[in-house]
Amino acid sequence: DDSKPTPVKPQKPKKESEATKFLLKAPKGTRDFDPLQMAVRENVFKTIIECFQLHGAVTIDTPVFERKEILTQKYGEDSKLIYDLSDQAGELLSLRYDLTVPFARYLAMNRLINIKRYQIGKVYRRDQPCAARGRYREFYQCDFDIAGVYDKMLPDSECVKIMADILKKIDLGDFQIKINHRKLLDGMFEVCGVPKEKIRLVSSSIDKLDKTEWVDVRKELIEEKKIEPEVADRIGEYAKLSGGSELIAKLKSDENLTKNKNASEALEDLDLLFKYCSIFNLNDKLTFDLSLARGLDYYTGIIYEAILKGDLVNYIAEQQKKALEEKAAARAAALEKSKGKKSKENLDLDDEDVDVNVSSGVGTVAAGGRYDELVNMFDKKQNVPCVGLSIGVERLFAVMEAKIKRDNLKIRACETDVYIVTPQKGLVEERLKLCQMLWEASIKTEHPYKANPKILHQLQYCEENSIPYAVIIGQDEIDNNVVKLREVATRAEETVPREKLVEVLREKLAKKN
Amino acid sequence: DDSKPTPVKPQKPKKESEATKFLLKAPKGTRDFDPLQMAVRENVFKTIIECFQLHGAVTIDTPVFERKEILTQKYGEDSKLIYDLSDQAGELLSLRYDLTVPFARYLAMNRLINIKRYQIGKVYRRDQPCAARGRYREFYQCDFDIAGVYDKMLPDSECVKIMADILKKIDLGDFQIKINHRKLLDGMFEVCGVPKEKIRLVSSSIDKLDKTEWVDVRKELIEEKKIEPEVADRIGEYAKLSGGSELIAKLKSDENLTKNKNASEALEDLDLLFKYCSIFNLNDKLTFDLSLARGLDYYTGIIYEAILKGDLVNYIAEQQKKALEEKAAARAAALEKSKGKKSKENLDLDDEDVDVNVSSGVGTVAAGGRYDELVNMFDKKQNVPCVGLSIGVERLFAVMEAKIKRDNLKIRACETDVYIVTPQKGLVEERLKLCQMLWEASIKTEHPYKANPKILHQLQYCEENSIPYAVIIGQDEIDNNVVKLREVATRAEETVPREKLVEVLREKLAKKN
Repeated sequence: DDSKPTPVKPQKPKKESEATKFLLKAPKGTRDFDPLQMAVRENVFKTIIECFQLHGAVTIDTPVFERKEILTQKYGEDSKLIYDLSDQAGELLSLRYDLTVPFARYLAMNRLINIKRYQIGKVYRRDQPCAARGRYREFYQCDFDIAGVYDKMLPDSECVKIMADILKKIDLGDFQIKINHRKLLDGMFEVCGVPKEKIRLVSSSIDKLDKTEWVDVRKELIEEKKIEPEVADRIGEYAKLSGGSELIAKLKSDENLTKNKNASEALEDLDLLFKYCSIFNLNDKLTFDLSLARGLDYYTGIIYEAILKGDLVNYIAEQQKKALEEKAAARAAALEKSKGKKSKENLDLDDEDVDVNVSSGVGTVAAGGRYDELVNMFDKKQNVPCVGLSIGVERLFAVMEAKIKRDNLKIRACETDVYIVTPQKGLVEERLKLCQMLWEASIKTEHPYKANPKILHQLQYCEENSIPYAVIIGQDEIDNNVVKLREVATRAEETVPREKLVEVLREKLAKKN
Repeated sequence: DDSKPTPVKPQKPKKESEATKFLLKAPKGTRDFDPLQMAVRENVFKTIIECFQLHGAVTIDTPVFERKEILTQKYGEDSKLIYDLSDQAGELLSLRYDLTVPFARYLAMNRLINIKRYQIGKVYRRDQPCAARGRYREFYQCDFDIAGVYDKMLPDSECVKIMADILKKIDLGDFQIKINHRKLLDGMFEVCGVPKEKIRLVSSSIDKLDKTEWVDVRKELIEEKKIEPEVADRIGEYAKLSGGSELIAKLKSDENLTKNKNASEALEDLDLLFKYCSIFNLNDKLTFDLSLARGLDYYTGIIYEAILKGDLVNYIAEQQKKALEEKAAARAAALEKSKGKKSKENLDLDDEDVDVNVSSGVGTVAAGGRYDELVNMFDKKQNVPCVGLSIGVERLFAVMEAKIKRDNLKIRACETDVYIVTPQKGLVEERLKLCQMLWEASIKTEHPYKANPKILHQLQYCEENSIPYAVIIGQDEIDNNVVKLREVATRAEETVPREKLVEVLREKLAKKN
C-alpha cells in the first residue's frame, strides 16, 4: 500500500493513548533524566561540590520562584524570557532566571555583610530551546560567590583558581581562562572616544569577537551603533590584543590608558590578579583578552570565562554539526512534501532542534566576575561587594556524555553489590533472610521479587546489571549452613559458611572499591 | 512619648529599602535555608539516599513543571491547590504537585515495564501555609517506588522495611508503622452495607479516627455522608480494631468478611506481608490498623503510614502549641487595638502562622502504598503495578532541628579543616603559597581575604567557626622553613617542617574523622 503517507524523519515518540488522548511528553525545552544520565550528573555535581567545599564554602537554598518585582530591572532585554506564574489571587511570582539575583535578595534581606556560599539549583528561561546545542528552558546552575569587603583580588583570584580546579578534576580536556576587567573596557572606550551612553552598546558588540570577524563587528559598530569609523578603528586596535602579564605591563606603559582613572585602576587589579594566580600555578591557563566583555550588566570589575579545548570538543562539534544538518534537511524535506497538502500533520516537527544558525562547539563551560552593586539595588543602605563564578554544568554533562559514548565507557546506574539467587522453588523466605543479614551489614543487596524465579534469569540479571557478586542459596546450602558466592564477571564460585558471608563480602568489596 | 503606636508583636522583618521600595521577602509559604539549616538537610538526605541505594534503587529527574493536562484528574478536590504558569503563548504548564504523577507519566511515556527508582525534589501546593506546623507551599518530597509485575507482597514488604530502616538510621525516636489494605476497607464497607458510590466518602471520614473521637466520626457519617446509623455502628465495630498478626487471624475467621472477595484477598495479602516483615524483624514496629485509609484516591492495595513517637515529639508538640498560642494572642491583641482605628497598619500579620485550629504534633513522617492503576490512566495499553513510599523530609528536618535546639548540639555549616594565619604584615603571598599546597593535597583550607589581617581576628575566626587547625606562618617560620600548627580547641602549638605539613595534617585529620 504505497499511498500511505510515510514519516519523513525519525519522529520523537509522541505517544497518545487512544483512550485518554494525553500528549505524553515533558514540556517543551525540558527533559527527563534517566538513571544513567543521572549517574553521570551526580558524579559531576560531586566533583564540583567537593571543590567548593575545599575552599570553605557553605550552601544555601532559595525558592524556585521569587516575587516578580525582585526580578524586574535585573536582566535588561532578557526579562522577556522570565516565566511568570498565573495570578491565582496572591502575590505575582516568577520562576528564577538565575541564582545570582536571589542570592543578592537573600543577602539584602538578611543584612549579611559577608558569606562564601555555593548554590546548585535549576533556573528557568523561556528561550528558544535547542537540544543539539544544549540549550534548555530548565537547566542547572552551579554558583560559587564570595560576598564581603575584602582586599583587592584575594577573593577574585580564588574564584579563578576554583574554576580551574574544577575543570582539572572533571578532566574533559585542556582549557583556557580568558580574563578582562569591566573598568578597563570602560576606560578603553572612553580613551577611544566612545560617548558614555554608548559604552554598554559597544561592549556587547565587542563581546562577539570570539565568534565574529573584526570587519563584521566594525560594521555593526558603525552602522547599527552609530560609532564614528575612526573611533571604531581605535577600539579595534585595543580589542584585538590578548596575552599574558607582559601585555598588562605593555598597557601600563600606554599613557593614554594610564591617564584614564578606570583603565589605570583596572590594570593595577589585573597585575595583582596575575601575580596571585601565578602562586596558584595558573599562568599557563590564563589569557588576558581585551575583547572579553560578558553579557550581564551587573559586572563591575574583573570578568572571566573558561573555554574547553581539545579532542573531545572537536568530536562534539562534529556530532552537533551532523545532527543539526540532518534536522535541517528533514525539516526542508517535510516542508517540501507538505506544500500541496492541506493537512499540516507531517509538519509537526519540534522547533527545538532546528536552530542551525549558530556556531557549533561547547564554548564557555564556566564564567563569572565581580559585581559590587547588585545587593545595593535591593537596599541602598547596604554595600556588599561580590565576586563569583557559575559552572556551566549542562555543557559539562553533554561533554561527559560524549566522552562516555566516544570511549565506550561503562556506567552503572545502580550501586548494587550483591544479588541473592535461589536455584529451586519455595525458597523465598531463605532469600529474604539473607537479604536481611546483608542489609543490616549495609551491603547493597537486591533479590528477584518473584517467589520462584528461574536460576538462568537471575544470573542473567546480575550480568546485565554488572552486579559484582551473586549469593546462591539452595536446599544443599541450607542443609550445610553455607552459601555459594559467585563472582559474576569470572563466574568463579566458592562455598562460604553463612556466618562468614558478611565478613568475606566486606573484604572483597573493599578491594574492589 | 507614649502616644506613639508600639508594635504589638515581634513582627517579621519586612524590610523596605527607602530608595527602591522593594518588599524584600521570599514568596508567601516559601523560605530560604541558611547554611546551618542546609547542613542538617544535607545530612538527612544523605541518610535517606544511602538507604534507597542499599536496596538497589536508581534515580531519575523530571522537570519542575508538567503540561497541565498531565496533572488534571489526578488529585480530586486538591487540584485547586495546583500552581499554574502564566499563558505566555506556549503550552499550558503547572508546577508539579507531587513526584508520583510525573513518575507515572515517565513510565508511560518511555513504556517502561519495571524500575526501582528514588527521586528527591521540590513540589508545590497553593495551600494555606503554616510555618509553625511545617506546612509550606514549596517543599521537598523523597520518593521510592518499585514498578513492575512481581509476586505478592515482595516489593510491598521491602517498602515497609525501607521506611523502617530510614527512621532507625535517622534516629529521632521510636516509631510505629500502621498498615491497612484498600481492598479490606472496600470489603469491610461492603459487608457493613455501605453503598458502592459512598465508599470513598466513608473512607475519608474513617481516616480521621487518629485525631477524632468515634462519636464525632459517627456523627459525620450519619449527618453529612447520609449513612444509616446501624451501618455506621457496624463500621465502628471494625474500624476500632488494631493489632498484630493475631488480628489478621481473627478476621480470617470472620465469615462475613471472608465471604467478601475484596476482604478475603486483602487478608491473604496482609498475612503474607506480616510474615515477610517478621523476617525483617519488624513485627514490633507494625500495627494492623483498620482505621487507616490514606487520603489519595489512587491506592489500590496495601497502605502504610509511619508515626514518630517519644520525647522529642512531645517536646515539639509543646513548642508548637506555645508558638501557636502566642501568635493567636498577638493577633487577638492586634485586632482589639485596631478596632477604633482607620489604619490597618498594625494588622499586617502574616496569615501563615496563625492556623491554631489543628491538632499539634509531628504525626506522620513517612507513608505510601500500592497504586496499580496510575500508569494506566496515561496509557490504557500499559499495565504497570507500582508500590512506593514517600518520606516526609520537611517534618524530619523540623524534628532534627528541634533535637539540635533541645540538646544544644553543635552543627558546622562549613567543613574547613585548616585556616592559614599570618601574624605580621606583608605576608599575603606566603599565605597563598600555603593555601596552594594544602588545596593541592585536597585539605579543606581557608585564609583571610585581607592583605594584612590582625592575628587576634584570625584566631577568633577559627574558634567561632570551629575550624580544627590553624597554620601560622610569620617571618621566623619562613626563615626556618617551618610553620606553627595550632590545635584550635586546645590552643596547643607545635612546629612542623613545611615539607611535612601535608603529611602531619592528613594524619591528624584522619584521626579526627
